[in-house]
Amino acid sequence: MAERASGSGESARDQTKEVARIAAFSDGVYAIAITLLTLQLEVPTSGDLAQGLAELAPFFLSFVVSFLVIGTYWMAHHRLFAVVERYDGRFIWLNMLVLFFIVLQPFTTSLVGERGDHGIAVAAYALSLAAVGFAHTGLAAYALRGHRLCSARVSDREISFSLWRGLSVSLVFAFSVILLPLGADAVKYAWLVLPLVQYLVRRRYARPGEA
Amino acid sequence: MAERASGSGESARDQTKEVARIAAFSDGVYAIAITLLTLQLEVPTSGDLAQGLAELAPFFLSFVVSFLVIGTYWMAHHRLFAVVERYDGRFIWLNMLVLFFIVLQPFTTSLVGERGDHGIAVAAYALSLAAVGFAHTGLAAYALRGHRLCSARVSDREISFSLWRGLSVSLVFAFSVILLPLGADAVKYAWLVLPLVQYLVRRRYARPGEA
Amino acid sequence: MAERASGSGESARDQTKEVARIAAFSDGVYAIAITLLTLQLEVPTSGDLAQGLAELAPFFLSFVVSFLVIGTYWMAHHRLFAVVERYDGRFIWLNMLVLFFIVLQPFTTSLVGERGDHGIAVAAYALSLAAVGFAHTGLAAYALRGHRLCSARVSDREISFSLWRGLSVSLVFAFSVILLPLGADAVKYAWLVLPLVQYLVRRRYARPGEA
Amino acid sequence: MAERASGSGESARDQTKEVARIAAFSDGVYAIAITLLTLQLEVPTSGDLAQGLAELAPFFLSFVVSFLVIGTYWMAHHRLFAVVERYDGRFIWLNMLVLFFIVLQPFTTSLVGERGDHGIAVAAYALSLAAVGFAHTGLAAYALRGHRLCSARVSDREISFSLWRGLSVSLVFAFSVILLPLGADAVKYAWLVLPLVQYLVRRRYARPGEA
Repeated sequence: MAERASGSGESARDQTKEVARIAAFSDGVYAIAITLLTLQLEVPTSGDLAQGLAELAPFFLSFVVSFLVIGTYWMAHHRLFAVVERYDGRFIWLNMLVLFFIVLQPFTTSLVGERGDHGIAVAAYALSLAAVGFAHTGLAAYALRGHRLCSARVSDREISFSLWRGLSVSLVFAFSVILLPLGADAVKYAWLVLPLVQYLVRRRYARPGEA
Repeated sequence: MAERASGSGESARDQTKEVARIAAFSDGVYAIAITLLTLQLEVPTSGDLAQGLAELAPFFLSFVVSFLVIGTYWMAHHRLFAVVERYDGRFIWLNMLVLFFIVLQPFTTSLVGERGDHGIAVAAYALSLAAVGFAHTGLAAYALRGHRLCSARVSDREISFSLWRGLSVSLVFAFSVILLPLGADAVKYAWLVLPLVQYLVRRRYARPGEA
Repeated sequence: MAERASGSGESARDQTKEVARIAAFSDGVYAIAITLLTLQLEVPTSGDLAQGLAELAPFFLSFVVSFLVIGTYWMAHHRLFAVVERYDGRFIWLNMLVLFFIVLQPFTTSLVGERGDHGIAVAAYALSLAAVGFAHTGLAAYALRGHRLCSARVSDREISFSLWRGLSVSLVFAFSVILLPLGADAVKYAWLVLPLVQYLVRRRYARPGEA
Repeated sequence: MAERASGSGESARDQTKEVARIAAFSDGVYAIAITLLTLQLEVPTSGDLAQGLAELAPFFLSFVVSFLVIGTYWMAHHRLFAVVERYDGRFIWLNMLVLFFIVLQPFTTSLVGERGDHGIAVAAYALSLAAVGFAHTGLAAYALRGHRLCSARVSDREISFSLWRGLSVSLVFAFSVILLPLGADAVKYAWLVLPLVQYLVRRRYARPGEA
């Protein structure tokens, strides 16, 4: 179902406007998904309130993690669309794939909040977050490599930085699942290397002064 | 309640801005409806988790189908608004009709996920998806035929392509309901011809190089 | 808490951009409220499906009425913002008041769907819809009278048309509540004069050719 | 994870476009959070309707308060982004922090509606509203001080006004928690000084004619 939107001789200006609309639609999906994350936080309607709130702790924790990760991917999406100037049918479908996994997050976040002591729940959660990142990296690679859909101003180093930054997050989540035989907690602890990995990627590719 | 927004002597530039706002409002509705699709995926709060997730399979399947179909219609909507330059009251109402059926999708998707072995549920689902397509084709036909609201640059072949591409999806969903006496599954299998129909429409109308 | 956003010497161009952002925020609220209307449509999870769906009829009916009325008010909002060029703190607060009543609609729609045979429910529903209209008319009157926030191009007849079109809908809903002693159904039947009232207002103020 | 978006030599025009997209994403989150506030208003499905609605009063009250406070912060956000012209990674993260607390509001609003007679619920609610304000003040201070991200046209008095207006609301909510030993109601009554505090801040910093 790919399509060349430039088919009808659209000017560069029209293309930019259309890219902005795809970005706006995506923003809507990100904004709704990130807001729906809290729906899993259910007010304890009876019993001791302090204890009821304490029992919400795992939900709250998964909410915070998902908020941070979806927020990070939204920022990556934002950065990508800041340099994309054209689009085609394949780009739209890859973007839909990213949104598909974003839309799944309230469910998997709720799953790990409710059943976080089960390996299956933790694995499903880690893999769904990894899936967002892989889809996003695919989208970015399609758009940036060979400057297919972006300005020629974008440097090769920036492109590598952009791809590795998203990919490294995905790889951590994907590989963390290997630790599943050691228990659900081992998988969660593996996520703590995320900041280190991000730091290494930044040191390797970012220009001085860039964070 | 039709209206001629150009009544107060709006310039072409104003009209374009207003069309963009109608598109943005529609995007909001599409984005929310597509994100609410997951609300039917309820975390199994007790019992064996693997089995509980396995029982979610029909919900997950209907979620994927609805995501793909709503996504496809959003893209058609996006393509249509890329060429629409003016609007009038009838155009707004036809667009509202499209949005009405989009808003229904989380309900019909949930219905077929929950009761997918019942003919009524499958028929209601297929007809609600067909209704989006028929409404969308009506909107596109109103805007494009005779270049009523679009640029004169848009070729007749492009217009036919645009109309038939949406209409063919609707026709498949509408006719699939005829198979209801053969059982709910027969209706679902009929949907598998969708990619073939899309391929035939593309071969008939798309220009070389266009997908 | 009123404010003069033009305080810091914003240019006319900046003001227009800010008005567009208020419109976009409002669109978001309208789009979400109109999509949440369907949340009251709950899939009957057990028992005879045909009968379960039949019992959803009053919910479906109130969903359709609310969709139409919110859609109508959104269009009025859209038309208003098409001519508004400036804003101030009071305009923002009046707009917030409109959004407050819009946000209430999923609740009152659900209320009348669930308890539509109770006079209280029908009255609350009618008054909440009237409230949207009164707030909207207040917003429009503030912005348009004396061309306070709109272009001087907008004619007096257009202003009267704009005010009476919204106000007439509100008045019908507000006065329908008077019939409450005759039963909940009498109130609902009174709403059937809405198309007639809209026709009379259009005939009185609309220019030939305008609908 | 800070980033200098200006890294790839973006022009001022590009930066403005990107700031607008961050504003649009934030608007989406605000609009969804403010609309989800009503989800706590559950229609009493059985029993005496008048009494059932009367029992919703505390929910309705917390809904109104949250609507007003979120609306106020949205307007402050709107005013801030009207003068912000550039952005960097830290600005995006501070904005994410604001959105994090906004996303929490439907939960804390529901909490105080359901368990408003418990000190913990009232304190959590007050602190979550204070947190929005502190995060917002941090964002504003980062963007405005030394005109880091805003136009040099913005005067020092306007900057002080902007910071104190948001901060004063937060301080009232934060200090109200001190009254907790006197009971949940004492905390709520403390909020009544909010209009007075807002008036004093306006009198101190607003220019004549500005509200």
